[in-house]
Amino acid sequence: MKSYSLGDIAGQLNLQLIGDPDCPIKGLGTLASAGAGEISFLSNSSYLGQLASTSASAVIVEARHADAAPTSVLIAEHPYVAFAHLSQLFAELPSVEAGVHASASVAASASLGEGVCIGANAVIEDDVEIGANSAIGPGTVVGRGVRLGENCRLHAQVTLYHGVQIGSRVTVHSQAVIGADGFGFAFDGTRRVKIQQLGSVQIGDDVDIGAGTTIDRGAIEDTIVEHGVKIDNQVQIGHNCYIGAHTVICGCTAIAGSARIGKYCILGGASGMVGHLSLADGVQVSAMSLVNKSITEPGTYSSGTGQMKTADWKRAIVRFQQLEGIVRRLKELEKLVGADD
Amino acid sequence: MKSYSLGDIAGQLNLQLIGDPDCPIKGLGTLASAGAGEISFLSNSSYLGQLASTSASAVIVEARHADAAPTSVLIAEHPYVAFAHLSQLFAELPSVEAGVHASASVAASASLGEGVCIGANAVIEDDVEIGANSAIGPGTVVGRGVRLGENCRLHAQVTLYHGVQIGSRVTVHSQAVIGADGFGFAFDGTRRVKIQQLGSVQIGDDVDIGAGTTIDRGAIEDTIVEHGVKIDNQVQIGHNCYIGAHTVICGCTAIAGSARIGKYCILGGASGMVGHLSLADGVQVSAMSLVNKSITEPGTYSSGTGQMKTADWKRAIVRFQQLEGIVRRLKELEKLVGADD
Amino acid sequence: MKSYSLGDIAGQLNLQLIGDPDCPIKGLGTLASAGAGEISFLSNSSYLGQLASTSASAVIVEARHADAAPTSVLIAEHPYVAFAHLSQLFAELPSVEAGVHASASVAASASLGEGVCIGANAVIEDDVEIGANSAIGPGTVVGRGVRLGENCRLHAQVTLYHGVQIGSRVTVHSQAVIGADGFGFAFDGTRRVKIQQLGSVQIGDDVDIGAGTTIDRGAIEDTIVEHGVKIDNQVQIGHNCYIGAHTVICGCTAIAGSARIGKYCILGGASGMVGHLSLADGVQVSAMSLVNKSITEPGTYSSGTGQMKTADWKRAIVRFQQLEGIVRRLKELEKLVGADD
Repeated sequence: MKSYSLGDIAGQLNLQLIGDPDCPIKGLGTLASAGAGEISFLSNSSYLGQLASTSASAVIVEARHADAAPTSVLIAEHPYVAFAHLSQLFAELPSVEAGVHASASVAASASLGEGVCIGANAVIEDDVEIGANSAIGPGTVVGRGVRLGENCRLHAQVTLYHGVQIGSRVTVHSQAVIGADGFGFAFDGTRRVKIQQLGSVQIGDDVDIGAGTTIDRGAIEDTIVEHGVKIDNQVQIGHNCYIGAHTVICGCTAIAGSARIGKYCILGGASGMVGHLSLADGVQVSAMSLVNKSITEPGTYSSGTGQMKTADWKRAIVRFQQLEGIVRRLKELEKLVGADD
Repeated sequence: MKSYSLGDIAGQLNLQLIGDPDCPIKGLGTLASAGAGEISFLSNSSYLGQLASTSASAVIVEARHADAAPTSVLIAEHPYVAFAHLSQLFAELPSVEAGVHASASVAASASLGEGVCIGANAVIEDDVEIGANSAIGPGTVVGRGVRLGENCRLHAQVTLYHGVQIGSRVTVHSQAVIGADGFGFAFDGTRRVKIQQLGSVQIGDDVDIGAGTTIDRGAIEDTIVEHGVKIDNQVQIGHNCYIGAHTVICGCTAIAGSARIGKYCILGGASGMVGHLSLADGVQVSAMSLVNKSITEPGTYSSGTGQMKTADWKRAIVRFQQLEGIVRRLKELEKLVGADD
Repeated sequence: MKSYSLGDIAGQLNLQLIGDPDCPIKGLGTLASAGAGEISFLSNSSYLGQLASTSASAVIVEARHADAAPTSVLIAEHPYVAFAHLSQLFAELPSVEAGVHASASVAASASLGEGVCIGANAVIEDDVEIGANSAIGPGTVVGRGVRLGENCRLHAQVTLYHGVQIGSRVTVHSQAVIGADGFGFAFDGTRRVKIQQLGSVQIGDDVDIGAGTTIDRGAIEDTIVEHGVKIDNQVQIGHNCYIGAHTVICGCTAIAGSARIGKYCILGGASGMVGHLSLADGVQVSAMSLVNKSITEPGTYSSGTGQMKTADWKRAIVRFQQLEGIVRRLKELEKLVGADD
């Protein structure tokens, strides 16, 4: 159980403290749930009411809200970012110890940097290079010729296919698969002929990849994920996609092959994107929306109908399917009453 | 190959038998496909025609349908529930033998209850506690400090992250991941700062979790799945969700973080739910529908348009996107003909 | 690095060559990206402009486009199919060596054909039969009694549950799960009673299965995937589905139980299909569309609304939800102006 004095936290996060520097802080909490010895934050003014009644021992707030807090206060320009940094002080990830577990299978030709940890039953194939201080989880399989940078963390049971290249400070969660074959077949009139996927996958630095996510290798050229991209669980990225730097892809999103996504985009959960389309920088796509045309301007885009009671919805979709006829009737009427000019 | 006399089955299921108690039953079948030596059931009156012509040796029916059956009959209040119990008599799951496979890697500090089975190449990390008669499949990884109850079954290649807590009689299918990091980053204007996920996951008793499903650990507090919840394959449950008891979540459903779902809900396949929303008890969501507002009353809810021939659909979506203009034209007309009051 | 003379390639693919047979070819490229020593193809006339300016050393084209190419030419009836065959000449998959890795766990009762390769930490349970020249990747688990044909490739960390039957020349990518329990419970008014899934899964010859895909075992009878079916990543196929020969299922598609899909269908990415429905042969479903009624005629089918700017979309969905009222107002108007006959 980690504990810090409030003054110590202020120092580490480089924030101004108003209150008791000796106050011990043992954990984090929401404004509503935090108690004595815990620290919280306010990043959204709509929670000002909760700030007033919080039982936290300290809160991180913008300067303009300092007076509203009934507790010790740390002043931050961006309280949510400060809270993110703070969360790292309290992380209690199981430590990983450098060294190769006796049950792991590591090829003689593999090259392991200093401080590398290889977990139980992991498999490291020929000609793999793993940078310093990277940790490979139990059961993870790293295919032939993979290059992995420094300070990476592959959790348990990740699969990296042969030849995949990954930068530094990359986290990959369990059951993610990077570098499986892209989905390419040529139909000869009777059956589908496999198109060998001769490209690979390149992942930049500071990328996070969620559990169960799949990123396919390219058909001819590589699939590319740029620096700082954050990918949630169960996302599918098809072959030859290009994902621009610092883009965020929420869970269960499906991106078909050869999509080209700009920088600083946000794809909402379970959204989709048809193949060979492109998104400009700064595009946001709403949850469960399908991108079926390229988007050239930043902004938010959506599809779908919004939820309804099923009985009402059943009537609405009948009407949706009649829309062409409804517009025809409207035109007829406009003509009849002379409103069609 | 298991076999029972019909009388034996009646006894075990506590059902009234009309017919031959000595009739041997070797398997189950649908009304349409079952043959001699097989037993079927009728739970939906629309299959009464199939009942009349079934070749099964016995059928489970409600009392009111007993006369309609051409075979021996077991009378049940709920034939489908009786059939479910019956299916358990015929299950031929490979037996699992207590003991630790020689190739498994079990930490010295792990505590295994009586009758526990640890499969080949499984990894049990420090301070894990596994209750009596639980079986851990081949290649499964159980992270540091996990607590698992009695009579659980983790199939092959499941991943439980550190600190996850699971009740008794829980089944988890292959490639499911419980306790990976929730998806939380604070944007500092240039890059995304990781918010450490300091919570864990709590799973109740009698929960089933499907293959490839992911349930993320909480940011501050825990993600919670209550007793009796049934989760199908490839479902994503974000951090800090609360899933009420006996709720059913069908395959490929995506639930964003901090969703709060009531008891006895049913989320249809590939449905979705935006974060921070809540569902009352007893809500049902249709397949591939998105919940984008909280739902406070039980009932069924849907979104989407229903399928059409693509050529017709292309016209309909043009009209959909013109709906605002269509309504404006309608208002104009109403004004023109004096129908706008 | 593989290399062939152009004449050698023409001979192996049985194509007419116009140009220099001694020209060395070291790789493949797109028309736009290929350089000296690389070969490309034209399968879509809209890229004729790129053909004219390509720097490739050779291109595969239809006879009618031979004159338009500035390079050596291979004439093919179907250039894309020829390119698929060509890609196989250049594939550099890591070779797999026959034999059982020392760390694999293979039951004494398992039967391995000639040339079989069992990777590191793989688990082969009792009574498994594996046909000649099949390769089992590292960490893959093959359950009791599985039958696998010849020349199959299971990549790393695949899970096959007990009793699954798979034909020859089948490829399964990492983290795919075949034969997990179908999702079946009978509600007894309080809780869900498990229906044991007594069927299995049958996969035909020449099937490809993508990473993270799940195919459930049947409740009573088997789930069936016919010859030549191609399944992309993260697809879910429910219990008792029947997938007709040579059908293609794109990534993230969710198919509920007991669906019956014809031959030569194409299900677009992230599409869905409600249970117990059927598709005729030759049906195509668009990306992210839901099949909610059976389809009896070949053709393309779609659902959804198409993307819009979110601000416009918010107005459109309000109108969508008012469609019943809009049509009522239209009828009123028609009555008022005498257009309702």
